[in-house]
Amino acid sequence: MKIAISQINCHIGNFEHNCSKIIDNIKRAEKDGADLIVFPELSVTGYPPYDLLEYDDFIEKCYKSIDKITASCKNIAAIVGSPAYNENQKGKKLHNSAFFLAEGKIKKIFNKGLLPNYDVFDEYRYFEPANSFSTINYNRHNIAVTICEDLWSLDEKTLYVASPMEELAKQNPGILINIAASPFSYNQHLERKSILAKNAMKYNLPVIYVNHTGAHTDLIFDGGSMIVDAKGKIIHEMKYFMEDYHLVSIDSIKNTNGKDIPATYGMDEKIKLIHDALILGIRDYFHKTGFTKAILGLSGGLDSAVVLVLAAKALGNDNIKALLMPSRFSSDHSVEDAVELAKNMGISYDILPIKKIYDVFIKTLKPFFIKNTFDATEENIQARARAMLLMAYSNKYGYVLFNTSNKSESAVGYTTLYGDMCGGLSVLGDVYKTEVYELVDYINRSEMVIPANTINKPPSAELRPGQKDTDSLPGYELLDKILFNYIERQMSPADIIKKGFKPGIVKKTVSMVNKNEYKRFQSPPVLRVSPKAFGTGRRMPVVAKY
Amino acid sequence: MKIAISQINCHIGNFEHNCSKIIDNIKRAEKDGADLIVFPELSVTGYPPYDLLEYDDFIEKCYKSIDKITASCKNIAAIVGSPAYNENQKGKKLHNSAFFLAEGKIKKIFNKGLLPNYDVFDEYRYFEPANSFSTINYNRHNIAVTICEDLWSLDEKTLYVASPMEELAKQNPGILINIAASPFSYNQHLERKSILAKNAMKYNLPVIYVNHTGAHTDLIFDGGSMIVDAKGKIIHEMKYFMEDYHLVSIDSIKNTNGKDIPATYGMDEKIKLIHDALILGIRDYFHKTGFTKAILGLSGGLDSAVVLVLAAKALGNDNIKALLMPSRFSSDHSVEDAVELAKNMGISYDILPIKKIYDVFIKTLKPFFIKNTFDATEENIQARARAMLLMAYSNKYGYVLFNTSNKSESAVGYTTLYGDMCGGLSVLGDVYKTEVYELVDYINRSEMVIPANTINKPPSAELRPGQKDTDSLPGYELLDKILFNYIERQMSPADIIKKGFKPGIVKKTVSMVNKNEYKRFQSPPVLRVSPKAFGTGRRMPVVAKY
Repeated sequence: MKIAISQINCHIGNFEHNCSKIIDNIKRAEKDGADLIVFPELSVTGYPPYDLLEYDDFIEKCYKSIDKITASCKNIAAIVGSPAYNENQKGKKLHNSAFFLAEGKIKKIFNKGLLPNYDVFDEYRYFEPANSFSTINYNRHNIAVTICEDLWSLDEKTLYVASPMEELAKQNPGILINIAASPFSYNQHLERKSILAKNAMKYNLPVIYVNHTGAHTDLIFDGGSMIVDAKGKIIHEMKYFMEDYHLVSIDSIKNTNGKDIPATYGMDEKIKLIHDALILGIRDYFHKTGFTKAILGLSGGLDSAVVLVLAAKALGNDNIKALLMPSRFSSDHSVEDAVELAKNMGISYDILPIKKIYDVFIKTLKPFFIKNTFDATEENIQARARAMLLMAYSNKYGYVLFNTSNKSESAVGYTTLYGDMCGGLSVLGDVYKTEVYELVDYINRSEMVIPANTINKPPSAELRPGQKDTDSLPGYELLDKILFNYIERQMSPADIIKKGFKPGIVKKTVSMVNKNEYKRFQSPPVLRVSPKAFGTGRRMPVVAKY
Repeated sequence: MKIAISQINCHIGNFEHNCSKIIDNIKRAEKDGADLIVFPELSVTGYPPYDLLEYDDFIEKCYKSIDKITASCKNIAAIVGSPAYNENQKGKKLHNSAFFLAEGKIKKIFNKGLLPNYDVFDEYRYFEPANSFSTINYNRHNIAVTICEDLWSLDEKTLYVASPMEELAKQNPGILINIAASPFSYNQHLERKSILAKNAMKYNLPVIYVNHTGAHTDLIFDGGSMIVDAKGKIIHEMKYFMEDYHLVSIDSIKNTNGKDIPATYGMDEKIKLIHDALILGIRDYFHKTGFTKAILGLSGGLDSAVVLVLAAKALGNDNIKALLMPSRFSSDHSVEDAVELAKNMGISYDILPIKKIYDVFIKTLKPFFIKNTFDATEENIQARARAMLLMAYSNKYGYVLFNTSNKSESAVGYTTLYGDMCGGLSVLGDVYKTEVYELVDYINRSEMVIPANTINKPPSAELRPGQKDTDSLPGYELLDKILFNYIERQMSPADIIKKGFKPGIVKKTVSMVNKNEYKRFQSPPVLRVSPKAFGTGRRMPVVAKY
């Protein structure tokens, strides 16, 4: 039996797009002599469709799509992910299902048994878990069809009471297929390989794993679909961050040479992965919203420089506009460095000093501000004046504004709400400042795109004379370690202190993170690259004390 | 047996506050000769604690609180809501539990069986559902203890496969206790009464129902705890929107006169409920964040007028500052109407015309804007200039800025991102414009607080000459009906059209709602008063096509 694997980039809610992409791939596979083609989880809707699933007409469109796709499965079988109605009176209205289509009919519907409901996942909001599992016999092969999380319950200690694979194994399948919607984070490809290999070995089964590629707002799907033999060796890995198609015969999976193929991304390529993921995240935000042009404020600092480079790679340098908006506190170097970068990248830029705008605000407020000492108020006026100019360009010309805050700043609230926090998409909101430095090294690996001075000068918001980030914050090397322990590892302040960090700094840092939930509540969507990003994956009370 | 009911206002994560409030009430009940006192669901943590539940030290603090509370339960029993560890290796780490404390010990832990995971609820994110249920014998009474949603599974068609009450009923309890965290919406008190009465009648049991009061960011808990006899009659209803305490003997519940007591809020008092709920929502946002003073822009229009009145009722007129910020397009009446209202309410106000600020922005942008036609760009500059002035006051003096957008505007995106969309809290973001008019009637019921001219003039953003809302939108009577069908009822455009609405207007309206997810993504928290508010209760993809 020959199986085609179709790693596609879906568009949430765009049934016409998804459906014709699926049918095109079915035709191709049929031409290639495939007996079966496999598509990712919820490929009919795109993932995650969120509360669109609560609309009956949305589900009707899923069924209409399945009908169309079924009609094209006369001489080939297909496995397609779609929601399906729960036929039981009890439980949630829907299942998260894999439709097995063959001979122009729906031969069987497999329902997902383990529903992830943590971090960015909300599947229990919509779906009823399956509680019985069975294989399908097709072309003299006994196939176990599972959906993503169904394979993620191997350990003694597990989030789930049920185990679909234990049930399926009793029916002696000869091959295991898993259709997935597994979003990217910089260690997810390793986790995935490990869990697939463990399943293959435990159940002595080859595994065909089909993931999405493409990005939907904050979530990036990296692809990397793969074939694992029954010994747990990876015998084929599909492309990352783009669509891919692969044809494999079951015989070839059963007779492998016992060696893993070389990995596309190795263990130590976190920064390269993040770099490539962010470019896809940016590109798909634009492709899927229909916007083509972007704008950002270029400060001469590191974060906006990195966003500019990534944006130019994603959208083309002709589609980017940079604004340089010096205030009286900007160093001479700032404008020079920004201009140098824009020229290096061939980016169009305008220079709009904000001194006059700042002055008129101060003058307007003067009669009402009795204490006219310079404080965060005046700093924020500068950041907000810049946001207003950027948004004016955005409104006038249809540019989408990039937010350029990094994860360290966002964590401790070293940002101005309605100022540098503005934007349609946050590119670096899940990248710590120390990782931004690593991204710069990676970007500059063959030529000096980002100017040396931008890299070497101490980080500064330049909102008051001689300001440096370290006036308000610990150095980023230290800060990022504390943040990582608190946010990614969910350690308590006491446990972080036990690791050797100074109590005062830990307590201050954690307190800043907690106090700034109110700002992050209004943050733009953040491209997720870590296992714990700000946004839907980390839900904290705003009004609370802890 | 005498039972005390303690309807308290908890503070999320503030263990000291919650714990000492619980212990104070235990002491009071003990003095009153009560045998048992009952507190709401998750009263130790406050509801909803969100991802704080993922921190081990947070759960340790829950257990420490339970220890302290247990120590005060030597001569009285208490039922207290808290998370508890799941002792099984399989399943989520925690249960949502009711601790039964007596004789200085934890006598029994009841775990919640039905976990709401829809609208604003995410309980399956944190908790493993119980799959076995048993009563407790205490003081010669067989008591069934349930937690909120456990009672919400009576119908043939239900979200849940399990039914805790069917299991408990087999054990012949004599009384049913339900501890709850049931957030307010304008019809929730009726739903609650209905479901409690149905349970009482079906199982022939009196019900003691204990809810939270108080607000946490967007969620308002209205209290309204109650006692229902075995015939389904409400024999005592506790206060709404404030703490309350009530002592009842089981004998008295069993010998009632068979009549419902008069309801605090009748069927037709939706607007009064919303009015009272919003005041609690505002007050607790301030009490629980520690802020005391608020600021808002007063436009002379209806929405900001209503927010001003509600804010003054919640926080006191001395704690409110209003800014009047006319532009060249503001009508003369706008400032006069705003001044009249501020004077009526005894609110301090400053007048800051924005003409000069607007002019300097236009001048700064002029060299770069080739087509200098007046469009949304220039309108937005005015809205954003106002936001900057308000935020400058906020930064300088520690005012919290109120957002004054209503649900109709927010739905169709008739708002300026980083302009009138700014604020720490949206007061009217779940109140349709037609309901705002009803709120005005209610506020003005005994004296004309909000000036007639503010009410009678056609709604306008006043951002260009002679502008009216109806230039861009259908009339609010029509618009709000379409929005209600699409948002609250989750009807498809086709089904709305079938009800007799014009296809063009329906399609345009739905398209505006969908296109503006990106704006609402960055909206401040919205006080929830309807069954389907924007925010955590309605999760939609930003990048999608539908």
